Amino acid sequence: MSPIKLTVIGGGSSYTPELLEGIINNQVLLNISEVWLVDIPEGQQKLSIIESLSKRMVDKAESPIKIVATFDRREAIKESDYIITQIRVGQLEMRKKDEYISIKHGVIGQETTGAGGFMKALRTIPEILDICREIEELAPKAWLLNFTNPAGIVTEAILKHSNVKVIGLCNNPINYYKKFAKTYGVDIRDVSINFIGINHLIWITELYIKGQSRLEDILTGKSDVYEAKNIPSFGWDLDFLQSLGSLPCGYHKYYYLTDQILEKQLEEYQQNKTRADEVQRIEKELFDLYKNKNLKEKPKALEQRGGAYYSEAAINLIKSIHLNTREIHTLNVRNNGAISCLPDDVSVETNCVVEKHQITPIQIGAVPPQIRGLLQVVKAYEELTVEAAVTGNKTIALQALTLHPLIPSANRSKEILQEMLTANKHYLPQFS
Amino acid sequence: MSPIKLTVIGGGSSYTPELLEGIINNQVLLNISEVWLVDIPEGQQKLSIIESLSKRMVDKAESPIKIVATFDRREAIKESDYIITQIRVGQLEMRKKDEYISIKHGVIGQETTGAGGFMKALRTIPEILDICREIEELAPKAWLLNFTNPAGIVTEAILKHSNVKVIGLCNNPINYYKKFAKTYGVDIRDVSINFIGINHLIWITELYIKGQSRLEDILTGKSDVYEAKNIPSFGWDLDFLQSLGSLPCGYHKYYYLTDQILEKQLEEYQQNKTRADEVQRIEKELFDLYKNKNLKEKPKALEQRGGAYYSEAAINLIKSIHLNTREIHTLNVRNNGAISCLPDDVSVETNCVVEKHQITPIQIGAVPPQIRGLLQVVKAYEELTVEAAVTGNKTIALQALTLHPLIPSANRSKEILQEMLTANKHYLPQFS
Amino acid sequence: MSPIKLTVIGGGSSYTPELLEGIINNQVLLNISEVWLVDIPEGQQKLSIIESLSKRMVDKAESPIKIVATFDRREAIKESDYIITQIRVGQLEMRKKDEYISIKHGVIGQETTGAGGFMKALRTIPEILDICREIEELAPKAWLLNFTNPAGIVTEAILKHSNVKVIGLCNNPINYYKKFAKTYGVDIRDVSINFIGINHLIWITELYIKGQSRLEDILTGKSDVYEAKNIPSFGWDLDFLQSLGSLPCGYHKYYYLTDQILEKQLEEYQQNKTRADEVQRIEKELFDLYKNKNLKEKPKALEQRGGAYYSEAAINLIKSIHLNTREIHTLNVRNNGAISCLPDDVSVETNCVVEKHQITPIQIGAVPPQIRGLLQVVKAYEELTVEAAVTGNKTIALQALTLHPLIPSANRSKEILQEMLTANKHYLPQFS
Amino acid sequence: MSPIKLTVIGGGSSYTPELLEGIINNQVLLNISEVWLVDIPEGQQKLSIIESLSKRMVDKAESPIKIVATFDRREAIKESDYIITQIRVGQLEMRKKDEYISIKHGVIGQETTGAGGFMKALRTIPEILDICREIEELAPKAWLLNFTNPAGIVTEAILKHSNVKVIGLCNNPINYYKKFAKTYGVDIRDVSINFIGINHLIWITELYIKGQSRLEDILTGKSDVYEAKNIPSFGWDLDFLQSLGSLPCGYHKYYYLTDQILEKQLEEYQQNKTRADEVQRIEKELFDLYKNKNLKEKPKALEQRGGAYYSEAAINLIKSIHLNTREIHTLNVRNNGAISCLPDDVSVETNCVVEKHQITPIQIGAVPPQIRGLLQVVKAYEELTVEAAVTGNKTIALQALTLHPLIPSANRSKEILQEMLTANKHYLPQFS
Repeated sequence: MSPIKLTVIGGGSSYTPELLEGIINNQVLLNISEVWLVDIPEGQQKLSIIESLSKRMVDKAESPIKIVATFDRREAIKESDYIITQIRVGQLEMRKKDEYISIKHGVIGQETTGAGGFMKALRTIPEILDICREIEELAPKAWLLNFTNPAGIVTEAILKHSNVKVIGLCNNPINYYKKFAKTYGVDIRDVSINFIGINHLIWITELYIKGQSRLEDILTGKSDVYEAKNIPSFGWDLDFLQSLGSLPCGYHKYYYLTDQILEKQLEEYQQNKTRADEVQRIEKELFDLYKNKNLKEKPKALEQRGGAYYSEAAINLIKSIHLNTREIHTLNVRNNGAISCLPDDVSVETNCVVEKHQITPIQIGAVPPQIRGLLQVVKAYEELTVEAAVTGNKTIALQALTLHPLIPSANRSKEILQEMLTANKHYLPQFS
Repeated sequence: MSPIKLTVIGGGSSYTPELLEGIINNQVLLNISEVWLVDIPEGQQKLSIIESLSKRMVDKAESPIKIVATFDRREAIKESDYIITQIRVGQLEMRKKDEYISIKHGVIGQETTGAGGFMKALRTIPEILDICREIEELAPKAWLLNFTNPAGIVTEAILKHSNVKVIGLCNNPINYYKKFAKTYGVDIRDVSINFIGINHLIWITELYIKGQSRLEDILTGKSDVYEAKNIPSFGWDLDFLQSLGSLPCGYHKYYYLTDQILEKQLEEYQQNKTRADEVQRIEKELFDLYKNKNLKEKPKALEQRGGAYYSEAAINLIKSIHLNTREIHTLNVRNNGAISCLPDDVSVETNCVVEKHQITPIQIGAVPPQIRGLLQVVKAYEELTVEAAVTGNKTIALQALTLHPLIPSANRSKEILQEMLTANKHYLPQFS
Repeated sequence: MSPIKLTVIGGGSSYTPELLEGIINNQVLLNISEVWLVDIPEGQQKLSIIESLSKRMVDKAESPIKIVATFDRREAIKESDYIITQIRVGQLEMRKKDEYISIKHGVIGQETTGAGGFMKALRTIPEILDICREIEELAPKAWLLNFTNPAGIVTEAILKHSNVKVIGLCNNPINYYKKFAKTYGVDIRDVSINFIGINHLIWITELYIKGQSRLEDILTGKSDVYEAKNIPSFGWDLDFLQSLGSLPCGYHKYYYLTDQILEKQLEEYQQNKTRADEVQRIEKELFDLYKNKNLKEKPKALEQRGGAYYSEAAINLIKSIHLNTREIHTLNVRNNGAISCLPDDVSVETNCVVEKHQITPIQIGAVPPQIRGLLQVVKAYEELTVEAAVTGNKTIALQALTLHPLIPSANRSKEILQEMLTANKHYLPQFS
Repeated sequence: MSPIKLTVIGGGSSYTPELLEGIINNQVLLNISEVWLVDIPEGQQKLSIIESLSKRMVDKAESPIKIVATFDRREAIKESDYIITQIRVGQLEMRKKDEYISIKHGVIGQETTGAGGFMKALRTIPEILDICREIEELAPKAWLLNFTNPAGIVTEAILKHSNVKVIGLCNNPINYYKKFAKTYGVDIRDVSINFIGINHLIWITELYIKGQSRLEDILTGKSDVYEAKNIPSFGWDLDFLQSLGSLPCGYHKYYYLTDQILEKQLEEYQQNKTRADEVQRIEKELFDLYKNKNLKEKPKALEQRGGAYYSEAAINLIKSIHLNTREIHTLNVRNNGAISCLPDDVSVETNCVVEKHQITPIQIGAVPPQIRGLLQVVKAYEELTVEAAVTGNKTIALQALTLHPLIPSANRSKEILQEMLTANKHYLPQFS
């Protein structure tokens, strides 16, 4: 097996140590020889801290992996086998603005959902497509694992506007597998979950433990379910769950419990304590830890950051591809008819068979109306968002935002859009 | 041409004089011999007033039409050629409750849209299906023209759960034709409109006057558009219209201008002056007029009631069917693939070719995402509503209401549903 | 109403006098001022004969129409309002080869069906697309009425590869209307036919006379049906018709009665008396008639040619478009979902609403399997034929021909293809 | 793991020793405790021979498996975990008639394709559905593995008309995997094949060996391909293969090389040496071998019978289900949108993920027209065949047979149908 060159774009992220841990643990199996960490000059300080920590981690593990940190993205991409994108255009500063502008206008402010996610998509997609141009040129055979949020929308943009072999990845599905394995005391391979949906909007329509359905346990509250750290922990009403007939994911709370969440966010906003503020604080603490020359492994504190098992999801996927295992992973891929009530060319998050040469979604049957309706309207919003981000067309952007279920009127969406476009001017060449 | 027996179920409605005027004017052309007005004993007083007025109208016109008012629905239906349903289960009293309960819980209260329309559907569908059972037995060849609101949902219930030849009819489309004909000074036959949508949620995607597109006039505000009397008259933002690329109908304001309308409704609610209150007042005034023995024609005041041209829509349709004209009407029919992003078996409001033996929708092309998303989520809500109304299943009812874009959370929908089911107990045998 | 310029490409056809008769009869109604007859230099003699006859016909009718015969296609197309294409690339000589090569290899030889129609499509499509390039440039608002066979395939090529406003026209449907009107002694407007299919492969799934179904009459042989002059007149087995549940068109005999027809063709072939031979003979006789300076109207003999009512179909369509009548015509248009078991972008022959600005198919419901199977395989053949004709790709041509139900093996299709490509070398620049 | 009861309906088949060999080899892994062999009294002699041989095989292997041979189907089915159906209604005698009647009428006679397969379906489906009724009652949790031919049609009948958890199984796919593994000297797990199609009509659209595409090898003749023993071994023309862009299966020869095969069959027919004759001869020889008391294992000669690896396919599938491996098998299952150009409710043969609780097809993308056309027409024929077999409706049977690409005319299909229905009268209660 020829050695792997793995490149992380956005390598200066506080998440990188988690990823590196997974890489080190699987170095032998996968013959990983080089890990390139790329970032932009604005992120120099963070990249440098991560570089040092990474090298200490590699050294401690006595691993032959070569760590390269660079601003030269082309050089990093060149002939890579696997590329991971985890960029944040405008950094946490702009994320904070996404949240604050949203809440100020009385709508939910969130990193990937609603007006916040919309704005992040507009900033991110042009940059990601630039990266894809380089991959097409310099590493056309590479698999691109995109973690960049909003992962479903960003992946859809890549699927529609490049030839890169992309897979959208989220840590949400793996957390369900992990949680259920733990709850039922079984190996993760004994957990089988039927999902319907798109990134950050997936419903669990069946859960099997060793071939036995356990959905009823969940719908009647007998089993605990996974709760993402970054989402308010209001529990589900059991009558509602049973009438739905499936388990919504955490992000569904923004849709099903809009008023409760909005109320909570307004409080946090008034105290300058939104999630963005919290993440800034956590990140600062993490980098303070990372600087410590005695730290030679991933610190525990990283788990608070919301990205649990994100490394494991990535490494498992690379293993499946590289070793051609034909295993099932839950990924963001081109729909291609797998969910027949959605267009063929959009991204969906669904169970896929992973082979070295292709990743193919498993067929999903009819989607019940209670799921179908919300799924279709949010996907239509996402399609428009991709189009707006690529074309820089303000009228499409206005329609995208207006269509979003969390925006209560065309007037409101116009106001929010205007303020957001102004605040993000620097990051939106396509709109000028 | 053999003589026509025409039956009006809900004949005691204040709208009947308008319908009768149309019938009288076309008596000769269509050879209408009998008009049966059916109502329930609770509506005896109104039916009696309408019966008298109808007879005076017929007499004044020296028309041979025989007017029969009755509570015997079976007798009325028997061997009818055309049956019009314009019933209101629970009368205006329950409509008022629909609106008040909605607004009290902070959501829009409206006769056909949102929680109000939902509740009206649950009350109405069982009754309409009882009527259909009788039509299947006693007048299987009759055409049923359903005006009963929410007309799209009620028509869908009939299409899915009976063999009756039903057409759902609304005065919304004809008002657009009339208005554009007037604006451009042309005959109504020179106006051609491309609609996409479902009842009370139709978008005008093209307007042609004598074969020339005039859509731009509308989207740039150069042309006035039709405004229904019963919908708040906030105008459309022109930027929004142009970004949408089509003209929404009046009922779209509930979706696109939710916050403005809700604010207005809260004011009206606090003053006990909702639309239901207004309609009760108008209706009382109308019946006072109708009682006057000197009144021998439809009074002008009826036009305030919101049902402009409703009679003309019905009579034109009966003419097209009866005379086999193959003309185009905008009707609520089984989708059957005409709008390919919606299921085959749902009702859609669309242009149809009307023949004596069949009514066939004209094919609609791809639906742009900004229209598709909202259309699909509202239709999924309607499908669940039909199912809830037919089965009396509370969990489906809860999902229907939660899915509606005007309901901001699952908790809210649970509270509203509970209160509405209690208030409507008497009218909901299927839920007990 | 501004005056119409009408252009006939392939104006030297023996069919032109029929068309001209229709034009003259409707000159006043439509204000037709100029008729341009275009042909190629090889057809000079025929064009000249037609030009003279046309002028005599116009003179006799004292019509103000100006007749222009020309080889200058660009001049003719320029600013035309309606353009009719009735070209025959390679003339009757090549049609004869189409038939002879087919039969020689033991398969049915026919102008539009099977190997013959396939070859005609390969010759014709590049020429038609050249014409379309000129129309796009010189008369972008013109409607193109394409009669050129195989009309469905040629129309599909135009729909897929140009922006011209094209309608494919065949005299098959109008003949059914005419025949049924005559059989039942009613006006043609009282005849309503539900068709499912594509050009030369349409099934009549319902027939209504004044709104009453008469399908049973046909399926039980109580009513005569239209028989095209150019198709062998073997009758349908009534058991077969009833099991089919609908009436196939004449061209279906090539599929349903393959062996009988093939036997007959083999006889004719051995005697040098195929349909192509007969048409050459008829055409010669017609031009002999046309030369006669005393002939000032369409001669009766033209009706043997197989194109009955073709003029009426064209003129009626132009009337409907020009006068914006919203009438129903049976035309070849983009499917766009009207027949849901076929792709959106193919041509289908179906009932359409004709307006000045658009021609829209009427929705067809589910297609029963006995119709669906044959329809789908022939359409897939047509899609490949269009692709082969446009790209000049021999491997696609081989697949197209092999897929055709009348070709019994891949080996046979390879032999036929080879011989046909050689025989047509001169007309197939795209394949060299 | 609780012990498995496995039931073989049609246990007296000459194939049983092969199956038993697989069962014995996997007894420990799967804890198989009982194997029930069911047959009908007419097959007593064969069942008895198989029973004895089976017991000798078990004894030799010192396996604890209990062999039960019985005519009591209900007892055998009761509480089975896995049921295998490999029945042949009318035995080889009727298969011979299927072939002879077909060829006599000048069409291909084959066990599963064309008129022969059609007739076998009509005989088999009622019997299989009787079995399914018993499974629903006596072993509702059992998985039914159907090998009974025509396996695709029979499986579709079960899917449409019962609630049994059925999987249709054919040895065709596994033979491709085996052959390619051998050709490329790799483990079968390193072979990945993309199939599109239905039973006995599958195209290989991609072949990957260890993640590298090897399709080109096949299409250019560089790699040998699997050739079923029971299909004439005419090779593929390489031009044809390359133009097709995929590898057809052996049964495709009946469609693509119809005339060659028909010619060969006519010769064999005249010499009384059709495949049915050969199979009768082979079967006789096999049973002569089986009778030998010294035979204690599957004889080599069985491999000539055409069912190579059929046991392995079955046992591998049972292993995957029972051990919940989530592996990929190529199976006949409900389409459910996996092949979007076919109806949802038909059977397709496709790659599936096998889990203990569900078997789910992997999504297939767009089907190219050269494959789509033939696939759709044959599937429509199959749908009609299922309907004819279930309803006993002769008119549907006539349409089914007429639609089949191997039947050259409606007249021919009528004659064949009549003769076949008469010859099979005893086996067709539904048609009387």
